Amino acid sequence: MSGEGISLEELGLAARNHGLPFEALDWDVTPPGLHFLLIHYDIPQVDPTAWNLTIDGAVANSGSIGLDVLRDMPRHTRIVTLECAGNGRALLAPRPVSQPWLLNAVGTAEWTGAPLASLLEHARPDTEAVEVLFTGLDRGVEGGTEQAYQRSLPLPDALTGEVFVAYEMNGAPLPPQHGAPARLVVPGWYGMAHVKWLSSITVLTEPFDGYQQRRAYRFREHADDPGRPVTRMLPRSLVRPPGIPDFLSRSRVVDAGRLALTGRAWSGHDTITGVEVSTDGGETWGDAAVEPAPDRYAWQRWRLEWDAAPGNHVICSRATDDTGRTQPLHPGWNVGGYEVNAVHRVQVEVR
Amino acid sequence: MSGEGISLEELGLAARNHGLPFEALDWDVTPPGLHFLLIHYDIPQVDPTAWNLTIDGAVANSGSIGLDVLRDMPRHTRIVTLECAGNGRALLAPRPVSQPWLLNAVGTAEWTGAPLASLLEHARPDTEAVEVLFTGLDRGVEGGTEQAYQRSLPLPDALTGEVFVAYEMNGAPLPPQHGAPARLVVPGWYGMAHVKWLSSITVLTEPFDGYQQRRAYRFREHADDPGRPVTRMLPRSLVRPPGIPDFLSRSRVVDAGRLALTGRAWSGHDTITGVEVSTDGGETWGDAAVEPAPDRYAWQRWRLEWDAAPGNHVICSRATDDTGRTQPLHPGWNVGGYEVNAVHRVQVEVR
Repeated sequence: MSGEGISLEELGLAARNHGLPFEALDWDVTPPGLHFLLIHYDIPQVDPTAWNLTIDGAVANSGSIGLDVLRDMPRHTRIVTLECAGNGRALLAPRPVSQPWLLNAVGTAEWTGAPLASLLEHARPDTEAVEVLFTGLDRGVEGGTEQAYQRSLPLPDALTGEVFVAYEMNGAPLPPQHGAPARLVVPGWYGMAHVKWLSSITVLTEPFDGYQQRRAYRFREHADDPGRPVTRMLPRSLVRPPGIPDFLSRSRVVDAGRLALTGRAWSGHDTITGVEVSTDGGETWGDAAVEPAPDRYAWQRWRLEWDAAPGNHVICSRATDDTGRTQPLHPGWNVGGYEVNAVHRVQVEVR
Repeated sequence: MSGEGISLEELGLAARNHGLPFEALDWDVTPPGLHFLLIHYDIPQVDPTAWNLTIDGAVANSGSIGLDVLRDMPRHTRIVTLECAGNGRALLAPRPVSQPWLLNAVGTAEWTGAPLASLLEHARPDTEAVEVLFTGLDRGVEGGTEQAYQRSLPLPDALTGEVFVAYEMNGAPLPPQHGAPARLVVPGWYGMAHVKWLSSITVLTEPFDGYQQRRAYRFREHADDPGRPVTRMLPRSLVRPPGIPDFLSRSRVVDAGRLALTGRAWSGHDTITGVEVSTDGGETWGDAAVEPAPDRYAWQRWRLEWDAAPGNHVICSRATDDTGRTQPLHPGWNVGGYEVNAVHRVQVEVR
């Protein structure tokens, strides 16, 4: 099989960066502790009473606010599906060496916070402002460069009204591993934009050229390709594996007869317009029923009845969004292993 | 390095069975979502209002109780460190093919529930009773055998007063992935005994010979060795990696000077009597200060001041308990990869 031979270093990343077990696709909102995690450095332990968020750079009103000020602002609550840009990376051959995600790097949570646009309006960016930089409290070395985790957004994306600084997840204060006491949520974008343990928001008059912007999270076809930035999530769907699992292989055993195949689909570009499902590994396809999204950037449940006949089957699903983007049957390679949204395949033995 | 070449099947298990990030050793009680998870089959979604716990087999009073009855019994709260019996397996060569744990399969939680002894006393086991079998609601195929997850305890171990049926973790109802609505907690024993999604307790007059008792979770030196059952946790200690990490290798960068090395140590057999720490990969050792355990079966914090001089170092820790059991410097091989409690080694560059 392609992609074998994962190293102990990659395994070490897999052990600390949690994935969503596929049966957790059953929940509309992912139970805390089952949402995916990608933590570049260490989880910082932050005292929420001592924490401050600095807003500075090219603004008329720079300053610093505590958690109480953030919580006193109008509450903004959204159900958001969040996926790592590297989801699917471990299916590539040759495999880019980084966090070796199969297809578990996703989760859906209800986040509550304060709109970024309100914070920026109060700070009054200069007319020369082009980007907003977000800095986390997590610090480490990556690609030989010591850094705090930092990512920027173009100013128009920061001002849409969709982006917010979240302090609650599923109705409770953020858990440490999800950025406590406050993190950025950028609905529709891959996870790298949702800066955790947020410590400062800095308005820039030049584009940010830090490691996570210029070297990581760029879609490059070859080593010399300057590439383009990774931004919004491509359409993806996952199959809730039917029946019961084999412990080791995770292949499934299903009793013959009629059953409902289900799963989830999402896209950061636009609404899902269709999910096709195959039970023969992609030879033939049927249209699943797709439920409306509970929120604009939340995953949608799909469902298709299946008359399962004895034998071996491969269940696949393929989502298409309203921009016409769809999932490829096989993963397309790129240097960093980003945006690998090929269809999910689940081995099933019907008996 | 030994143990390279992890397969995609093993990686799939690593993606769904979460490990403790080592920096989470900072917390006395592990934040929810960072405690290790080993889920043999799928996480069942259980309606707590419809759930019942059956107590049957060789008893005078068989019956079935709901969650309300369990919650009305005297509350039993304990802080318990829980470790998977396979922790360290991926460090073996050749590597037993199963969940490929490095050293992250641990966590400490505050569990609340009802004593098993009270339940059994009410049921009145027959005089011929020898074991108590615990059955979970999780179902799958393992080693070619379809099964619900089942494990037994010898009757004397079930009646010590230490074992309990937990319905709360860290002061909240159990999360689905930790066995909601109720699970067994067997303080001091490896994780396989702590049956999740508990559905029945059956008193037996013959030893249980199901898969998880007779085939899995036995310490075998070679394939034909009948082996012995894996029971209580051997002493283990872990190092809280100092400084900041490299994203990929997780090796550490530390500023030269005086700093405190810290970590945790535990044993299911007896209290930890000493933790030795080495900063030169095990050539020389110093005695760490060990704090008392917050509870009989909870991990203990250790601490040692270190004058870090520039250069490369390997930090190790070695725990000994009051039975005289200690950690080996190098892992000892066995067929299933159980009880691999060799010392933890952390690569550090002091600059």
